[in-house]
Amino acid sequence: MVNFQYYTPTKILFGKDTQHKVGEMIKSYGYDKVLFHYGTGSIKKIGLYDQIVASLNEAGVSFVELGGVEPNPKLSLVHKGMELCEKEGVQLILAVGGGSVLDSAKAIAAGVYNHCDPWPFSSGVKKLEKSLPVATVLTLSASGSEMSNSCVITNEDGWFKRGFGSDANRPLFSILNPELTYSVSKFQTGCGIVDIMMHTLERYFCACEDVALTDHLAEGLLKSVIDAGRIAIENPTDYEARATLMWAGSLSHNGLTGDGRKYFMRCHQMEHELSGMYDRVAHGAGLAVVFPAWAKYMYKHALPRFCQYATRVWGVEMDYEHPERTALAGIRMTEEYFASIGMPTRLSHLDIDESKFEEMAVKCTFFGKRTLPDYITLDKEEIIDIFKLMV
Amino acid sequence: MVNFQYYTPTKILFGKDTQHKVGEMIKSYGYDKVLFHYGTGSIKKIGLYDQIVASLNEAGVSFVELGGVEPNPKLSLVHKGMELCEKEGVQLILAVGGGSVLDSAKAIAAGVYNHCDPWPFSSGVKKLEKSLPVATVLTLSASGSEMSNSCVITNEDGWFKRGFGSDANRPLFSILNPELTYSVSKFQTGCGIVDIMMHTLERYFCACEDVALTDHLAEGLLKSVIDAGRIAIENPTDYEARATLMWAGSLSHNGLTGDGRKYFMRCHQMEHELSGMYDRVAHGAGLAVVFPAWAKYMYKHALPRFCQYATRVWGVEMDYEHPERTALAGIRMTEEYFASIGMPTRLSHLDIDESKFEEMAVKCTFFGKRTLPDYITLDKEEIIDIFKLMV
Repeated sequence: MVNFQYYTPTKILFGKDTQHKVGEMIKSYGYDKVLFHYGTGSIKKIGLYDQIVASLNEAGVSFVELGGVEPNPKLSLVHKGMELCEKEGVQLILAVGGGSVLDSAKAIAAGVYNHCDPWPFSSGVKKLEKSLPVATVLTLSASGSEMSNSCVITNEDGWFKRGFGSDANRPLFSILNPELTYSVSKFQTGCGIVDIMMHTLERYFCACEDVALTDHLAEGLLKSVIDAGRIAIENPTDYEARATLMWAGSLSHNGLTGDGRKYFMRCHQMEHELSGMYDRVAHGAGLAVVFPAWAKYMYKHALPRFCQYATRVWGVEMDYEHPERTALAGIRMTEEYFASIGMPTRLSHLDIDESKFEEMAVKCTFFGKRTLPDYITLDKEEIIDIFKLMV
Repeated sequence: MVNFQYYTPTKILFGKDTQHKVGEMIKSYGYDKVLFHYGTGSIKKIGLYDQIVASLNEAGVSFVELGGVEPNPKLSLVHKGMELCEKEGVQLILAVGGGSVLDSAKAIAAGVYNHCDPWPFSSGVKKLEKSLPVATVLTLSASGSEMSNSCVITNEDGWFKRGFGSDANRPLFSILNPELTYSVSKFQTGCGIVDIMMHTLERYFCACEDVALTDHLAEGLLKSVIDAGRIAIENPTDYEARATLMWAGSLSHNGLTGDGRKYFMRCHQMEHELSGMYDRVAHGAGLAVVFPAWAKYMYKHALPRFCQYATRVWGVEMDYEHPERTALAGIRMTEEYFASIGMPTRLSHLDIDESKFEEMAVKCTFFGKRTLPDYITLDKEEIIDIFKLMV
């Protein structure tokens, strides 16, 4: 177990009808001027927009609004949000939506507070120390952004998708009502399930030893998500399944399932190249393609851990004479599960061919400036080999 | 799953050598005058006292000190600490020790900030809304006070031991170095293991349904603690085992293993009467006596849950025809485990007879003013029956 810092200051209000408390919550922190930030309209369809407006009005919180956040949120809209905040003297960004809206809000908050373009934070040139407060009302169980230190933005100038971590990115409070995810499509629900699982799997598969407690928590979370995922896909209004996915989404990326580990999110890095290059690719769907390929490439270098994953999470019987069979069974069950919840598992399912492998691999190495740490180090050639296994 | 609020703002620094950062951490929050609060001298024996003083001096944090906190911390010392803080203009209480020192610090902080005797908070007459900041350096894995909202104090005037919860009780930051627990005796280590397990077990055994994720996290935590407990008792300087116990101690009582549940800590309530009445009884040792008796009294009223506990945590095979056998096997294995780590499991092991059962039961019902919610409501008579099963 390696030394770690754990810091999850975000206050969570979880459960039915909690969205009606948003105005009162903001006011309790002494804020009364906010940017109400949202996506491309689904919150209006489900009536949430009106509920938020009513709650803000009732609490005496004034707001300006900016909708239009797209999946893979864009830097240009962030700049627009910053202008609005500066002009209107906004004190807090209220993000109502899924991970893209939340990340867009975090980027706006970072830019406004520091009076600068936030892209240098994303690209790692500058370190974010402080930010404007962000509050969230979540409508999609996936990114974990509602509790995480992470913010991922796409710069249309070159289609770079970059994420960065800073405790200043952690929201002040987040409101999680599972009912607000009832209307999420089966496909988006599937994407969310994969994203949640991957946040834990990226941490789980690392070379650190002696993390028994973190292992057990990670495995328990994965088992819960796998079960709840099946139910939510079949019955989108099952409260308990939606609640499990929503809370697991937060816990999977707030640090808990990585405590005591030194990890690197290499599958996310490769997926960022994929959905950065092909804007139509949903992040979770991309991950469902990346993980099985990565696992098949890597399992021989971490056989005991892949066996632990297969036996504890998927209930595979350990084959002590042929442990590679156990490991592969776990990978196969993961891939089959992803397919069963409607996810693509090969690039062909996304209508993507080999033509950009080289370019994506080069970008993933920051044009030769880095390799990806893993059980074996991943440089351009290895990344291309993994992309080839996605075909 | 019921609605819940999750709020764990305490920043955790976990790992080797982290205690040397205490001065720098305090300073980073802008404080420079603290009360250094500790127990009856063990921190001097292990050299920690000098390390803390050096770190405070180096960071330019001035301090006054108050040692002498005993197990089951007393209100009289809290009053003494308050006087000192008020006289010296202390801004933060630094608690270095185990749960008793931390709780004593929390009570001092509550009293100083609110300019009042803190006992009304403990006895539930007043609600604690704000408090002076408390920082901790932990030397005992047990109470979870380093991250919890809880504070338990004993009033020598009548020997009432009372705990209360408030988010204002959550420490600002806590430093957790497992090496600082190497010198904890086998007996105190055992008491800590039971306390950690009980914080999760009290939450686990409640009537709420559909808490699959919280269940899996709780079961994973319990399995880790059971394994690490065996190792730490046998080899007190096993870093990984000590680390598992320390981090599990924090997670077990910070809310995580109770999210989505409505629970009541009835075994703790009964144990508080025991160690409130018999000051020589260590809290964890008392709990090791209370839980098996409570479980034997209660299992028939929650058979499926006791079976889930037995099968998932202890690996008992489910006997579908005689589920009560499965449930009892889980209880028996818990009791045997407590005994194996050197804990008493009967009142006779503590040299306590039946003479005070009536008085303790009366106190536990707040002199007839409350009953304890449970699978079946516990009033004075039921509490006496449970005490009788401890004989």
